[in-house]
Amino acid sequence: MPRIVQLYRTGGPEELRLEEAPPAEPGSGEVRLTVQAIGLNNSEAQLRRGDYPMGTAHFPTRIGRECSGFVAAIGAGVVGVEVGDEVSTIPAFDVQRNGVYGEWAIVPVEALAKVPSCLNRLEAAAVWQPYLTAYGPFVEHTRLQRSDTVLITAAASSVGRAAMQVARLFGCRIVATTRSTEKRKTLEADADRVVVGGEDLIEAVMTVSEGRGASLVFDPIAGPGLGALAEATKPGGLIVEYGQLAVEPTPFPLLTCLRKGLVIRGYTLWEITRDSVRRERAKQWIHDRLAAGELRPTIDRVFPFDRIVDAHRYLETGKQTGKIVIDVAAGARQ
Amino acid sequence: MPRIVQLYRTGGPEELRLEEAPPAEPGSGEVRLTVQAIGLNNSEAQLRRGDYPMGTAHFPTRIGRECSGFVAAIGAGVVGVEVGDEVSTIPAFDVQRNGVYGEWAIVPVEALAKVPSCLNRLEAAAVWQPYLTAYGPFVEHTRLQRSDTVLITAAASSVGRAAMQVARLFGCRIVATTRSTEKRKTLEADADRVVVGGEDLIEAVMTVSEGRGASLVFDPIAGPGLGALAEATKPGGLIVEYGQLAVEPTPFPLLTCLRKGLVIRGYTLWEITRDSVRRERAKQWIHDRLAAGELRPTIDRVFPFDRIVDAHRYLETGKQTGKIVIDVAAGARQ
Repeated sequence: MPRIVQLYRTGGPEELRLEEAPPAEPGSGEVRLTVQAIGLNNSEAQLRRGDYPMGTAHFPTRIGRECSGFVAAIGAGVVGVEVGDEVSTIPAFDVQRNGVYGEWAIVPVEALAKVPSCLNRLEAAAVWQPYLTAYGPFVEHTRLQRSDTVLITAAASSVGRAAMQVARLFGCRIVATTRSTEKRKTLEADADRVVVGGEDLIEAVMTVSEGRGASLVFDPIAGPGLGALAEATKPGGLIVEYGQLAVEPTPFPLLTCLRKGLVIRGYTLWEITRDSVRRERAKQWIHDRLAAGELRPTIDRVFPFDRIVDAHRYLETGKQTGKIVIDVAAGARQ
Repeated sequence: MPRIVQLYRTGGPEELRLEEAPPAEPGSGEVRLTVQAIGLNNSEAQLRRGDYPMGTAHFPTRIGRECSGFVAAIGAGVVGVEVGDEVSTIPAFDVQRNGVYGEWAIVPVEALAKVPSCLNRLEAAAVWQPYLTAYGPFVEHTRLQRSDTVLITAAASSVGRAAMQVARLFGCRIVATTRSTEKRKTLEADADRVVVGGEDLIEAVMTVSEGRGASLVFDPIAGPGLGALAEATKPGGLIVEYGQLAVEPTPFPLLTCLRKGLVIRGYTLWEITRDSVRRERAKQWIHDRLAAGELRPTIDRVFPFDRIVDAHRYLETGKQTGKIVIDVAAGARQ
């Protein structure tokens, strides 16, 4: 009997319960996937702990937004997809109903995307959350030029790594931040400057940008650090806040915003995925660049499905650089 | 001998010193104006008090950014302007050097604008700060539709009044706020709903917008009220912060911004006036609508130049609705 993950209450990684469950039938507009691999996201640890800023779960619940797999069954009204198709999920659905942690998952057809055949099943589970999140600010919100400097905070995350790759496509200069000295070397391969912990962020951005400041700041942290980000931004520049990793409140840097005409934007990838036109445009843009080898997901570590609790423990250490992936196919039960 | 206002130190309205001063000669790129009327701005009270958020004065200094007048002398290299031309100043210069509180003023030629002949000298001194400030957000930053609701705070100010007129041109629904019960009636003539003091702002915006929220929020206050403004804004909407009237710090409404994909933008009219293309486009747009009678400056009260100290006292009461103007021509000395 195949297994899925169920969550019965908020708590630590051990609350992820592996349970046998017969495959459900897809409803209207849905498909059932045989899951090959699962990409973990920090928002799933937040949902599990009960501190997900975008909402709380109703229990019991499934969990998980990103997987690769094969289409195993097709619900009423679904067109353009056939049984056997190899697909990934884009994170554009209700995880409570459609969570993908499991050997099977039911997802709405509009959440399916094809990834180029040059990616293996693990990479195919590590594409959409990172690149779609970066796509909005780097492709839609700004028109980046080669002379622009971008500032990417928490740059070792899968989204941060994806953003660095996208920024490189535009030829931008990159300043990347991380809390961890160990990650400096990895990030240095792809950034013009890596700023660790207490180092002077503003000075670093001003040096790399030759005094102009960053055109785009891409930040999932918020909190008291927003003031320094604003100082490091060029007049008329854009700061995109896409998460809430900071525990402390976030003061709005009013005077800096007034003086420099800064724009601060709250952003989640729902902005892209809820809008069918923007979603399809984004999928195509990312697909084409994956196929051309210009983008390639960064995988940090792979766990077997049996060890999903350990994978979440590792997720919470923050030691990863890029994506943590669960290889479901390797040990799947029929 | 003509008189000008000099400021020798920060302080109360009485620090505005009327002094006799022979007209200076305009330098390269400058003209001398014989001032007809002066429009007062809140930022001038802030500069005088020493709490202007955009910078502090070096003393002694002149003060004032908006006036109407005649060109009296022309500096080297000035083209397109002739002695005797009737002009207004747009607030796009260093007030320390070019302050216009006086019977004469030296201003850079790019700060001159012609206003339509349908405006009198008092109205001509009340055009540019209000309409240029409103122009950026209402014309450049957004594409307003008839179905949109806009929220204008501190709506009784000259900028607020100008913004209400511009919003009406686009056919928008308007929610206007004021601290003063006395101003409710005046504002009600031009707004769909006026919110006074402690009334429920979010409920008012949701009612007027039929539950959608405001597309554009235009706010010079900031402070703790920003959270409620964000709640009243529709998903994907824009909040423009263009001042700092609040004394308390401004918390950034992170979660609301994330959930709704809100954009918060710091803005001053320098964004328009420093860019010659945007400045000329804005001047033309405003000029055409003034000439067509679609916009008309709101003048609250007129003081003679002798009573400029009283005018600043009145400015600080916050009792005005629209612009306080100094009629210089009525009592001018030669």
